[in-house]
Amino acid sequence: MTATADTATGTMRAAVLTGPSTVAVQHRPVPVPARDEVLVRVGSVGICGSDVHYYRHGRIGSMIVDGPLVLGHEAGGRVVDTGDDVDTALLGQRVALEPQRPCRRCHHCKGGRYNLCPEMEFFATPPIDGAFCDYVTVPADFAHPVPDTLSDEAVALLEPLSVGVWACHKGDVGPGSRVFVTGAGPIGAVTVQAARAAGATEIIVSDPVASRRERMLDFGASRVVDSGTFVPDDLDADAFIDCSGATPAVLGGIRAVRGGGAVVLVGLGAEEMLLPVQYLQNKEITLTGTFRYVDTWPAAISLVTSGRIDLDGMVTARYPLERAEDALAGGDDPRGMKAVVTVSEEGA
Amino acid sequence: MTATADTATGTMRAAVLTGPSTVAVQHRPVPVPARDEVLVRVGSVGICGSDVHYYRHGRIGSMIVDGPLVLGHEAGGRVVDTGDDVDTALLGQRVALEPQRPCRRCHHCKGGRYNLCPEMEFFATPPIDGAFCDYVTVPADFAHPVPDTLSDEAVALLEPLSVGVWACHKGDVGPGSRVFVTGAGPIGAVTVQAARAAGATEIIVSDPVASRRERMLDFGASRVVDSGTFVPDDLDADAFIDCSGATPAVLGGIRAVRGGGAVVLVGLGAEEMLLPVQYLQNKEITLTGTFRYVDTWPAAISLVTSGRIDLDGMVTARYPLERAEDALAGGDDPRGMKAVVTVSEEGA
Amino acid sequence: MTATADTATGTMRAAVLTGPSTVAVQHRPVPVPARDEVLVRVGSVGICGSDVHYYRHGRIGSMIVDGPLVLGHEAGGRVVDTGDDVDTALLGQRVALEPQRPCRRCHHCKGGRYNLCPEMEFFATPPIDGAFCDYVTVPADFAHPVPDTLSDEAVALLEPLSVGVWACHKGDVGPGSRVFVTGAGPIGAVTVQAARAAGATEIIVSDPVASRRERMLDFGASRVVDSGTFVPDDLDADAFIDCSGATPAVLGGIRAVRGGGAVVLVGLGAEEMLLPVQYLQNKEITLTGTFRYVDTWPAAISLVTSGRIDLDGMVTARYPLERAEDALAGGDDPRGMKAVVTVSEEGA
Amino acid sequence: MTATADTATGTMRAAVLTGPSTVAVQHRPVPVPARDEVLVRVGSVGICGSDVHYYRHGRIGSMIVDGPLVLGHEAGGRVVDTGDDVDTALLGQRVALEPQRPCRRCHHCKGGRYNLCPEMEFFATPPIDGAFCDYVTVPADFAHPVPDTLSDEAVALLEPLSVGVWACHKGDVGPGSRVFVTGAGPIGAVTVQAARAAGATEIIVSDPVASRRERMLDFGASRVVDSGTFVPDDLDADAFIDCSGATPAVLGGIRAVRGGGAVVLVGLGAEEMLLPVQYLQNKEITLTGTFRYVDTWPAAISLVTSGRIDLDGMVTARYPLERAEDALAGGDDPRGMKAVVTVSEEGA
Repeated sequence: MTATADTATGTMRAAVLTGPSTVAVQHRPVPVPARDEVLVRVGSVGICGSDVHYYRHGRIGSMIVDGPLVLGHEAGGRVVDTGDDVDTALLGQRVALEPQRPCRRCHHCKGGRYNLCPEMEFFATPPIDGAFCDYVTVPADFAHPVPDTLSDEAVALLEPLSVGVWACHKGDVGPGSRVFVTGAGPIGAVTVQAARAAGATEIIVSDPVASRRERMLDFGASRVVDSGTFVPDDLDADAFIDCSGATPAVLGGIRAVRGGGAVVLVGLGAEEMLLPVQYLQNKEITLTGTFRYVDTWPAAISLVTSGRIDLDGMVTARYPLERAEDALAGGDDPRGMKAVVTVSEEGA
Repeated sequence: MTATADTATGTMRAAVLTGPSTVAVQHRPVPVPARDEVLVRVGSVGICGSDVHYYRHGRIGSMIVDGPLVLGHEAGGRVVDTGDDVDTALLGQRVALEPQRPCRRCHHCKGGRYNLCPEMEFFATPPIDGAFCDYVTVPADFAHPVPDTLSDEAVALLEPLSVGVWACHKGDVGPGSRVFVTGAGPIGAVTVQAARAAGATEIIVSDPVASRRERMLDFGASRVVDSGTFVPDDLDADAFIDCSGATPAVLGGIRAVRGGGAVVLVGLGAEEMLLPVQYLQNKEITLTGTFRYVDTWPAAISLVTSGRIDLDGMVTARYPLERAEDALAGGDDPRGMKAVVTVSEEGA
Repeated sequence: MTATADTATGTMRAAVLTGPSTVAVQHRPVPVPARDEVLVRVGSVGICGSDVHYYRHGRIGSMIVDGPLVLGHEAGGRVVDTGDDVDTALLGQRVALEPQRPCRRCHHCKGGRYNLCPEMEFFATPPIDGAFCDYVTVPADFAHPVPDTLSDEAVALLEPLSVGVWACHKGDVGPGSRVFVTGAGPIGAVTVQAARAAGATEIIVSDPVASRRERMLDFGASRVVDSGTFVPDDLDADAFIDCSGATPAVLGGIRAVRGGGAVVLVGLGAEEMLLPVQYLQNKEITLTGTFRYVDTWPAAISLVTSGRIDLDGMVTARYPLERAEDALAGGDDPRGMKAVVTVSEEGA
Repeated sequence: MTATADTATGTMRAAVLTGPSTVAVQHRPVPVPARDEVLVRVGSVGICGSDVHYYRHGRIGSMIVDGPLVLGHEAGGRVVDTGDDVDTALLGQRVALEPQRPCRRCHHCKGGRYNLCPEMEFFATPPIDGAFCDYVTVPADFAHPVPDTLSDEAVALLEPLSVGVWACHKGDVGPGSRVFVTGAGPIGAVTVQAARAAGATEIIVSDPVASRRERMLDFGASRVVDSGTFVPDDLDADAFIDCSGATPAVLGGIRAVRGGGAVVLVGLGAEEMLLPVQYLQNKEITLTGTFRYVDTWPAAISLVTSGRIDLDGMVTARYPLERAEDALAGGDDPRGMKAVVTVSEEGA
């Protein structure tokens, strides 16, 4: 029994995580945009590892699902209503959603690092609902206009691309950089593409699964290696970006970095790792991590629109909204790269 | 009457600027590498605007030619001898020459900005001889190994490419940047290519000559405009890089830059310009210039080797060493882009 | 006949610029804080050069006074009311006012440079009223808590100090820096103090008036020089910060900067200057300006509270609100440094 | 039987580590400066924890003493001879020694991070001899002129001060910074002083020994806490600088850092530590270490000469060269802070 969006009656469909590994498509009221918001009819929504993790485990670290939650934070769509303070010229605009709402007032927000805002509301992070539904509201300036040349799926995947762009920014990847990337999943793929777009000329990717790592060559890796056997000690990489979250990958990757280089931890893995601090000290290597991103959509949109980066090629599975649970349940099949839930068709 | 290199007899050919607009090919002793140097048999040498300027005017600003001078500083070749402290494994290595020799001891050298070393010795800058000759010596670490896949001409043009790479570095050009470039000569061409390689997605090039600016599209410009009519005020560019040295181009270009953006002056023009300082202040725009480069060869070599940048396509005229004067005399034909003097064939 | 603030009846005093060089103290309604604002009872307000300029000339560049305007933007006070969304714990808090209100949504705001926000509303900049009145409203996060150990006047002068802190930030002033400052007025004084607090060990100040420059020694200058005769060419300064706006000072100061150093233009002077661009290029000097500041109050408050910086010593004249016009009329007496209008006594 | 320096006969005294915990004062030839070197008659030499460690354990990590070694790398003195390429005007100059000799040719050296040079020769690091002797040679540009107002001991202690200056540089300590420092030994003391000189307004120091931490107040700490009981979780520090090498101190200190802040590991402790990587990721904290320093002497000299930093107050014990072993044997008495070996009196 499929729910259908119906703005006239003010109801819409939403795929709701109602309990452990249980998703139900329910009717919900269409949200009303606040003064500074737009109402967006959702097009496509990508499945992220965090969605799968919430679906399976009901929590990620200290963030615990303790009520019904709509998952999904990789999304785009079309503006169908505007709040009182928003320019109505946005009506009908196709947009990519930056799924966060910072307070805009704290020192982090004022200092250009709103991703660290302690009052952040982030899509699909309890108790904030996400985008597996017909309509969502976002602050107008977090709905980034996209050209009609981009597919709905590419628009959705600007979110993971933003993760890769931010990781390369943190790793100071630039023209001629040599970059070591561990993990050949979707975040590895966007990181490779972002690194290449930033001018990296050597991008070595490590993964234990041959089929996964081989496809990284299509996304711009210059070399792929088996993480089970490869010893990266002599790579002399300018940056090492972990997209696996695997402790051995992180420990090995650190040894790949040249003196003064950067380690950027993107993958979420163990809470603690036994790190070689003397090695980091003696080489003055900088280790940091990424937490979401800051204002990466404009660059991400330009990179995809100009053809530097291919997001469509990452999609390996598609599901209608009614089958959002299947998408979540199958979300970590290593043979696939990226599953997308199609809520509506907004592409030109 | 052609001179011929003859290492056995210790003599070589050199195209020497002996007076105003006068070049003679003379016999000179083959130089002997100092302890930290290599002797390089020269392959190709590009003609730079500064070479043409010295040839015509005998000076550039306060740098005055007051004796015989060998011009040419865009060069590559093959190592044929090594100084006592240099690894002999370099023998036979094809190399690109970084044509400078800093003191390595001053605060600039120690601080990573050796291009500003007050004791710098730079090729083809009076009284230091350049590379229009069969053999030159350089510090071993300023002879950068290149793969055999690069042509002799590409190896020589790594020098102008370095100018473009350094300009983009100074302008903080990165993924998604919008860059405005004025001047569609060879430096404009390498700057466009370097900007594109660094991730710039919009590169607008301005030049008064249609044929010159059109070819910028081949090098990666996204749009070319007529400097005679184009008003760049609303470009909102992240960086403006002047490669023309023309005062009107600089004044116009400054208006193209967004708040907080960068103006980078590469072209050498008037000593003084009437700049809109209040405009720079109110927008907190940063204006700087480039003076040569610092350790750009490794990145430049990687970018060309990996196919990101095309240097061969820039060459529009070739001359043998004996006709170096013709190359200099014709060096500013706007129909050409880059003339190269072929001293020997070192390519694989 | 003096107007008196009367929150009960909802009226207050305001010194209003009603025409060219004419200020009248009028009754106005006490403003009501918006949801995100606080209502502040004003303590002391400093007189800035821009206030004097508006008073005399009715404009600064393109910013034209075309209606009644309350001047004054260097202010502090005490929170007496809070908007609906503001924590009432702020009631009674002494605060320093950051006199700006950015949009918080544009790329500048998101990127940590809200001072460049095109929708900025700034105190005492037409048509936005300033602080020469009994009560003002500001966004709660732009009312920075200050300890009771600071005098009302010091609280007000955190605003000009912010200008100095921002200038030193832009000039990358740090431990051991040598800084050349031109202009020994109040902005020169805060810049000298901010530079010293940032670790500058040599601070040379230039001014044509002996008495003005001598007092810079009290604020931490290591040396003062007569701008009429001093030639700064060999200073080899890491940063040159102009606080005079005088074209000759700027032109001379540029010659004081070492290769790779910084020129920061703080003083507002001529719209255009004939700058030595080749000199800037050949030394890779970076020239920029400051436009207000970004989130400088926390640092400024700490510096004053910890005793590193003395603001009280800058005050050379005091006026009650009723005599605001006298303060403005006498605001550029070179014998004085800083005039302050006392609106109420909020100090502990 | 005391050895005496005798340049006429070409012999000098040297305190030589000849075996485990064994130091003998021997006669050695006075070294002859190479072309780019100066010969320096040594004044005072500080005892560093690394000297004590080599004395006791014969190794630090992979650096093993396997022959006679002269310890001591915190030194100053007076130039008494110059190599052929060195300006003889240096003769008689009092100097502080930067005890390192990089290759000047590798990418690290060219890029402004010569401390990471893989060919570095560093004083008192096997097999390079140090300064517990009458005369040493150093590259002329690593003998930094100092004014006569500095004591011999202060000149020697510019080396540990450089460690503190470099740590604060890495931690981006600036005006208004809040800094958490763990470890109240000599490196803690110079770090506190360097942080204060850089503008830090809150400097909290943690140490288990009350007497040690209390004296940090004299060096500029704003607060001292007992590392045994203090929980730094809510400090919201901009930077945490570990000067203890103690794993619990590092683990605790990380929790003191605000989002986007810096962790700088200066103390040498365990090779590996179980670090909270998720915490670092979620707060985008940057963790790095320091390895010696790059060109810090000019700033350090200025800071001490201008009176911002007090090095003399750190000296708690003095020994003549003949008692170098006693200095080493007693070098870690927690009641003392800094022991100095007096080789000759070079102070004015």
